[in-house]
Amino acid sequence: MEVQVMKNILGANEETAESNKKMFDYAHIYVLNLMGSPGAGKTCLLEKTIRHLKDRVRLAVIEGDLFTDKDAARIEKLGAPVVQINTVGGCHLDAAMVEKAADKLNLEELDLIIVENVGNLVCPAEFAVGEDEKAVVISITEGDDKPSKYPLIFKESAVCLLNKVDLLEHCDFNMEGAKKDIAALHPGMDIIEIYCKKEHGVDAWCDWLVKRVEAKKGGAK
Amino acid sequence: MEVQVMKNILGANEETAESNKKMFDYAHIYVLNLMGSPGAGKTCLLEKTIRHLKDRVRLAVIEGDLFTDKDAARIEKLGAPVVQINTVGGCHLDAAMVEKAADKLNLEELDLIIVENVGNLVCPAEFAVGEDEKAVVISITEGDDKPSKYPLIFKESAVCLLNKVDLLEHCDFNMEGAKKDIAALHPGMDIIEIYCKKEHGVDAWCDWLVKRVEAKKGGAK
Repeated sequence: MEVQVMKNILGANEETAESNKKMFDYAHIYVLNLMGSPGAGKTCLLEKTIRHLKDRVRLAVIEGDLFTDKDAARIEKLGAPVVQINTVGGCHLDAAMVEKAADKLNLEELDLIIVENVGNLVCPAEFAVGEDEKAVVISITEGDDKPSKYPLIFKESAVCLLNKVDLLEHCDFNMEGAKKDIAALHPGMDIIEIYCKKEHGVDAWCDWLVKRVEAKKGGAK
Repeated sequence: MEVQVMKNILGANEETAESNKKMFDYAHIYVLNLMGSPGAGKTCLLEKTIRHLKDRVRLAVIEGDLFTDKDAARIEKLGAPVVQINTVGGCHLDAAMVEKAADKLNLEELDLIIVENVGNLVCPAEFAVGEDEKAVVISITEGDDKPSKYPLIFKESAVCLLNKVDLLEHCDFNMEGAKKDIAALHPGMDIIEIYCKKEHGVDAWCDWLVKRVEAKKGGAK
């Protein structure tokens, strides 16, 4: 029974995700579903992204958290439109939550929406929310075995951000091995090394993002 | 419907967890459900714990992972009995999985079973597996906002291990603030600072554990 119910839930989610996607396509907004463990550095990455892109891209954030609005407050400080979703204990965002959140944004005035999912390397990968692509952030302090231990999120994501690379000397993290594992799971996946706190690699990441945003806009709005 | 199904699933799990608990009680085995984010340092903690306790306590490990047996292989190397559970993508262990795993252990010859849950700061906290107590490991590299953002796991756990404290100087982690947040969520909760890799604090942790094991054994076996 549990399996059938999961199939029904996933099926219903898929339908809403497709309808969200149509809406975002119509508005020419590139939507990224940003995933990663608690503390991988998702919100820090968003802060730096907003600072780097604010004069080039009209960006909004949908913030997923279990309970608090701490992350949304951090984004709001930077002047970007932000909508908070609290899952009240739920371990991932779903398409219906993002549909409601998107209602609160003025889509006419946006080029890019980044959806920061709940901190979790497992469940968010199973639930589309209407995004164009998914991205996964891992911190190198988590260890180099994460790709092989949590394969789905790497298979589902278009890009992997390896964060906190400046702490490499303090961690047993085999960078070459991790990249090989990622390439084996998802051949051709983009991998960007960053140290978000000090903004290393944030340029390369923003270039990656801007290319996507421009392709989606296609000149027309 | 989704809510009712979740209630049914949780209810059925609770029953199996109680029956596991009775079995472990009968065998005078203290069982700890060890939880934490991917990369918090759960397996490293187990390795050090086995090394420290192998002459004092008869310890076995039940290893929960999505797919690989990498962690179980690390435990096996140290000579401790270990049973692997692969959830095949599932985001937490449940009581039925632990029931099956326990069947493969010789309970007569054990004082302590540590169940290493799937790396996830959300879902494992909702599913009892028959444990005496839960423990949560967080790495200070994850940031000091984790207790307030993931409250359930701190409310449910008897002890919080703050790992990788030697990296404090490289991280924006307010130790006092984090401890206050933990105390607010779970008054009187034990908090142990460790740096597992270098075995700092592992003595204090093992003392905590041995006290529990001895109380459970109560001299009789």
